[in-house]
Amino acid sequence: MQPAVVDEKPHSTPSAPNGPGGVFAAALTPMKDDLAPDAAALIAHCRWLLANGCDGIAPMGTTGEANSFSVGERLTILDALADSGIPGERLIVGTGSASLTDAVEMTRRAVTMGAAGALVLPPFYYKNPSEDGLFAFFSEVIQRVGDARLRLYLYHFPQMSAVPIGITLIERLMTRYPHAIAGAKDSSGELGNMIAMARIPHFRVFSGTERLLLPVLEAGGVGCITAGANVIASITGQLYAAWRRSGALAEARRLQDEVTRQRLLLDSFPMVPGMKAMLARRFNAPAWRNVRPPFVRLAAAQEAALFGKVDEAGIAIP
Amino acid sequence: MQPAVVDEKPHSTPSAPNGPGGVFAAALTPMKDDLAPDAAALIAHCRWLLANGCDGIAPMGTTGEANSFSVGERLTILDALADSGIPGERLIVGTGSASLTDAVEMTRRAVTMGAAGALVLPPFYYKNPSEDGLFAFFSEVIQRVGDARLRLYLYHFPQMSAVPIGITLIERLMTRYPHAIAGAKDSSGELGNMIAMARIPHFRVFSGTERLLLPVLEAGGVGCITAGANVIASITGQLYAAWRRSGALAEARRLQDEVTRQRLLLDSFPMVPGMKAMLARRFNAPAWRNVRPPFVRLAAAQEAALFGKVDEAGIAIP
Repeated sequence: MQPAVVDEKPHSTPSAPNGPGGVFAAALTPMKDDLAPDAAALIAHCRWLLANGCDGIAPMGTTGEANSFSVGERLTILDALADSGIPGERLIVGTGSASLTDAVEMTRRAVTMGAAGALVLPPFYYKNPSEDGLFAFFSEVIQRVGDARLRLYLYHFPQMSAVPIGITLIERLMTRYPHAIAGAKDSSGELGNMIAMARIPHFRVFSGTERLLLPVLEAGGVGCITAGANVIASITGQLYAAWRRSGALAEARRLQDEVTRQRLLLDSFPMVPGMKAMLARRFNAPAWRNVRPPFVRLAAAQEAALFGKVDEAGIAIP
Repeated sequence: MQPAVVDEKPHSTPSAPNGPGGVFAAALTPMKDDLAPDAAALIAHCRWLLANGCDGIAPMGTTGEANSFSVGERLTILDALADSGIPGERLIVGTGSASLTDAVEMTRRAVTMGAAGALVLPPFYYKNPSEDGLFAFFSEVIQRVGDARLRLYLYHFPQMSAVPIGITLIERLMTRYPHAIAGAKDSSGELGNMIAMARIPHFRVFSGTERLLLPVLEAGGVGCITAGANVIASITGQLYAAWRRSGALAEARRLQDEVTRQRLLLDSFPMVPGMKAMLARRFNAPAWRNVRPPFVRLAAAQEAALFGKVDEAGIAIP
């Protein structure tokens, strides 16, 4: 018997009941040998992820190398996803750009394709923007899209964008656009920041790493949108399911420890080329190794080291 | 009489004689009230700059808010410039993007429009890329453009791109692409780095600030590509002319001190909104104040403070 735990009822997300949650994979983008995106392979990957532990997919994020593609290429991918039959409620689509007008165009497409959300970076070229400037950017995006169906998720990833999205900015945006601003993906890795975000009413917080999935759920967050889910979604999905079950908190904690162990191993290699190499091996599909600059493929020795560690750790892609 | 100076002959740039040099303005981009770029106003601004101290124009750079525009908007601006009659030899066009395919498309257009150079940022979304990854990015740009007329200037601006372009990367690129790689704009503000770049044979170095124009010229550089030239090109042009004249080094030094004083004053305000406000006042053209987020206009009090300081310093826009 497990010890008595405080959670007697299945967990839910009372502060933001209607909307996506759970384990979302920040999907890798398969490419052809000329580095063009392979939309058919991406859709196959998304289906496979949904069948193997993922509640949803976040295509065209950092892990998806979105900002290495042109807007035209990104829109072509969104069109293919819209036509794929994957339900829009399973999709939170990355639509951020340094360019205001590009962000507007892609965010509008996310809405019209019926995606559950649009994940929007701050404009990331100009550094140290004022809070007023960031507020103006997101205001322009929301007003120019001009569609009541928009559910915008703020993408906080200061290590990559170099432009943080602070709590006071979120509060200003939530006050002004309480329907359009739906939540955030926090890839900072800082649990304290995620907890502070999760305290904002009606604001859905996804951890950007599965390493913090359970703590974020316990703090009122709704799930994770993560790179790792491309290869370790099964166990992460089990963790989320345990959290949702009555009386399974100890099981959830055990699973979190294992998820954390696996994720830390992945973190010790270049994530995108590393996971692509793992999928290339799993599916005997060499094209999975293609990446766009500035990423580079793992060298053969690096790849062998990764595979050795992955196998030793018992990470088995289903 | 001036004291005897070591420079008896007019200065030239022996290591890289054929190519653009002098004072290039990183042109501000005028916008309509809906924040669409105003190509006609931009061309008028370029003509005015060329008539008032500039040797050339570098449109669609950081100061031109290029990365806040869509690729379509940027190409429209390049088309308008191509049709304007401004000689291509006067233009070094910003064509950088986080996206490989966007950078290729814009760089190709810079070549076909006859621009003297394309100024290309490193891919600036993914941080801490490997040198191999950056080499692969620029290699792909050069090979995909595939045009012997390409003269690519590397845009080193670590404070903004957060992705430095190091000397060893430049040397690798120069070895592999000795014709396509033409030089760099160094906006780091670090004279030591500019001097190291200028030591590379056949590599044209532009300082990213007029504050270091004379030291860079003395180190073998060819000029500057600067924001400040939008409003202080006249005196900067005088400085460059003095450098080129025989026996006028002391005059050049005096002018450098004055240019530095004026530039430091500009640096004490948000540069792009500040210079746009100065031009709005000068030409009684309120639309000059339009900026794209994340930039914001100066508040009225801030603008008054800027104008007060500018007037007190004797900075007069011609």
